[in-house]
Amino acid sequence: MTKLADNIKVIAFDIFGTVVDWHGSVSREVAAMGLNVDPDAFALAWRAGYKPAMAEVMQRGEWVILDDLHRRILDRVLLDFEVDDLPEDQRRQLNLVWHRLEPWPDSVEGLTRLKKRYTICSLSNGNIGLLTDMAKNAGLPWDCILSAENFNKYKPHPDTYLGVARTFAVEPARVMLAAAHHSDLEAARKCGLETAYIERPFEYGKQNPKPVAPWDANSLHSTSIVDLARQLDC
Amino acid sequence: MTKLADNIKVIAFDIFGTVVDWHGSVSREVAAMGLNVDPDAFALAWRAGYKPAMAEVMQRGEWVILDDLHRRILDRVLLDFEVDDLPEDQRRQLNLVWHRLEPWPDSVEGLTRLKKRYTICSLSNGNIGLLTDMAKNAGLPWDCILSAENFNKYKPHPDTYLGVARTFAVEPARVMLAAAHHSDLEAARKCGLETAYIERPFEYGKQNPKPVAPWDANSLHSTSIVDLARQLDC
Repeated sequence: MTKLADNIKVIAFDIFGTVVDWHGSVSREVAAMGLNVDPDAFALAWRAGYKPAMAEVMQRGEWVILDDLHRRILDRVLLDFEVDDLPEDQRRQLNLVWHRLEPWPDSVEGLTRLKKRYTICSLSNGNIGLLTDMAKNAGLPWDCILSAENFNKYKPHPDTYLGVARTFAVEPARVMLAAAHHSDLEAARKCGLETAYIERPFEYGKQNPKPVAPWDANSLHSTSIVDLARQLDC
Repeated sequence: MTKLADNIKVIAFDIFGTVVDWHGSVSREVAAMGLNVDPDAFALAWRAGYKPAMAEVMQRGEWVILDDLHRRILDRVLLDFEVDDLPEDQRRQLNLVWHRLEPWPDSVEGLTRLKKRYTICSLSNGNIGLLTDMAKNAGLPWDCILSAENFNKYKPHPDTYLGVARTFAVEPARVMLAAAHHSDLEAARKCGLETAYIERPFEYGKQNPKPVAPWDANSLHSTSIVDLARQLDC
């Protein structure tokens, strides 16, 4: 392990699902608002709109920040759940729930330990303002916030992974992407990055466990960010 | 003061001279290397190349990160000071001194206090990698690192000041620029930002004090970042 741990300079983290619990945070806030919907199903539907919305924007060759995509999807999901009467200011407020997502219990400790040895940054499709508010609210100790917004491309576009290496003037092999999604890691690996999988079996809620089996192609497989820190001698 | 303090959401900081002491750090490192030059004059000459180099890049409609500009200027300044034999690896190492600039004695305390109430970010012509290394080295507790590199324009281009407001989705009047340079503040003011001047009389060294008289146009005039925090009730 020592050789890998010594060679890496930067660890970039996927955020939604990897560092923060979007499903729990969104469904709790929806429940607290008293919306007449199933909070679990509502959170899943909102998140399900995310990938198709980004794909559409990329296909058109446009650039739209995630706050705006989240809002378009929210308005459609509210229609689908037959909530027609939510006032504009409450929609705007609810849309900002993505700025207030709560960290998994191990995230702050794990990042704090990794920060002593590595440059740690976000690499998320969330916009910079969203990620800044989230870090402030959740106490995430980033050295630097990097976002799809820095590169005007969403992950898994290669410009995002290679952009991290370019930003810090290092070879791609000196950057590790840590994520709870094998597809994100696979795209990073194709760009020459090292990869660490983080198990988040309840990303979609306690009722909807997801498989977290290792893929041999990843450089590391971790049960948490604290476990990743331990594996990297931090 | 309370109304201004309440209205601001984001404080963006100029970096070179305002938060860190480039003259002292560069001249100390040049002296420690044992280069056969006057360290004070060398630091001043290196920095003096900065504005013309940026102006040339902007005029050509190009974009070049500051690390690369610093290197071009360094090679020329070494020639001017008749240092012809500095090896490539030492040039590369010396060029990174801008990543290792030391903070003024009040910077970390002042920023830490302001961070409790405001979103604090950099707004510097330094590139993101430079600012990240500097923050890690100097312990600068940014919520977010913003750079000319985010906007592909150097200050004082309006895109940089307005870019801060756009990044955090607030009106320009809810952003304050803090800087030790009246020209930077004036450009920010034209974009609708609030402005705070920070006195740094020895930016160019103890031997070269600069005037730090207030300009009425600034929203605030501070003797240090700690004084700015005090004035904003932090």
